[in-house]
Amino acid sequence: MAILHSYPFCPHSRFARLVLAELGLEPDFVEEKPWERRLPFLELDPAGNLPLFIDDEGLAVPGARILAEYLDETRDESLGDRRFLPQDLAQRVEVRRLLDWFLVKFHQEVSDYLATEKIYKRFMPSDIGGGPPDMGAIRAARANVRYHLKYIGFLIAKRNWLAGDQMTYADLAAAAHLSVVDYLGDVPWDEDETARHWYARIKSRPSFRALLADRVPGMAPADHYDNLDF
Amino acid sequence: MAILHSYPFCPHSRFARLVLAELGLEPDFVEEKPWERRLPFLELDPAGNLPLFIDDEGLAVPGARILAEYLDETRDESLGDRRFLPQDLAQRVEVRRLLDWFLVKFHQEVSDYLATEKIYKRFMPSDIGGGPPDMGAIRAARANVRYHLKYIGFLIAKRNWLAGDQMTYADLAAAAHLSVVDYLGDVPWDEDETARHWYARIKSRPSFRALLADRVPGMAPADHYDNLDF
Repeated sequence: MAILHSYPFCPHSRFARLVLAELGLEPDFVEEKPWERRLPFLELDPAGNLPLFIDDEGLAVPGARILAEYLDETRDESLGDRRFLPQDLAQRVEVRRLLDWFLVKFHQEVSDYLATEKIYKRFMPSDIGGGPPDMGAIRAARANVRYHLKYIGFLIAKRNWLAGDQMTYADLAAAAHLSVVDYLGDVPWDEDETARHWYARIKSRPSFRALLADRVPGMAPADHYDNLDF
Repeated sequence: MAILHSYPFCPHSRFARLVLAELGLEPDFVEEKPWERRLPFLELDPAGNLPLFIDDEGLAVPGARILAEYLDETRDESLGDRRFLPQDLAQRVEVRRLLDWFLVKFHQEVSDYLATEKIYKRFMPSDIGGGPPDMGAIRAARANVRYHLKYIGFLIAKRNWLAGDQMTYADLAAAAHLSVVDYLGDVPWDEDETARHWYARIKSRPSFRALLADRVPGMAPADHYDNLDF
């Protein structure tokens, strides 16, 4: 039985959950708090990356991007011409470019700040950084999310999905990271109709349901978070 | 004619130079200062990643990791059973895990600090952060490099190369990033003989020559930097 070590509001973990659900895989879920750095977990991946997927054979596949490559090589063929990493060379470069855009750049500039400051720090012990959020970091993330939203709108205005005609890993990564920010009410959807329509489309997929059911204890989501017609 | 946009002391650029040289590719080199964020360059890759490879067909391949995947898919077959990303599934996960270890973790904890503080800031205008180095950042990097060196020694003690029997992208990434730190004299080689022997092996390869000939204007390398029997 495959296992996914993940944390409900870790944006990289959400990417893995979306991709696995899209592929029809149903691993056992093990919750791993990113800040705990438990020894048995670090023995599976010394870098302590989340998500960490353990396949049926016991192979540990650490991190969102490596999981995407692994699934492309082992499962993606089952999707036929609707693979999340299309076979055309230029398309593969474009999907990987946008995958990095959201998993690295958007994470550094937006989703890591907001998840850490508003969610993780509520549950982290104070001796490792838990406590009230740093409002400077939150303001920076809220400013940054605006240009990312514009970039999504710019891409969707000329393409059906972020990387081209088909939904790819790029869309799933962008939506996974945005979903954490959206829970917190920090996506200014009214600034970009095109981006909002793209998100409504991807949010309506069955793979998104489990994400929309997640709740941070003691912290309600933004009103529209689980509304498919937001 | 292929082009590599790179900067001599950008550790990710050095990885690209090593890999391309190992594959016998000789692109035109265009020097791109990472801090300048020139508009014509950002038009090729909006994220401004270095290195940026432009292939013979004009396809822009941004960043070290995407270049590694691209080369695996287009050129690596020419290496037969000595590919830098071996075909065995578990081996591919391990190479990618270590590739991320050095391109992401080592970069964040060691090579980015040292390249930025000791080299880039000498040439950056003061209004965008140029000036004297932050000694706190340098001390942190010097402390961090010690455990990375131990990790290399730990892996090499049980394997011929970092990810297994063959030299892979993992070795080229680790050596590329270490080479910048080594120029600055900040690798405590005497703390790990095994890691030192591995580096001497990889440093002796013809692909390394161009890196060993690089000089920061006004700043001599550590004595042993270009000595193959260090």
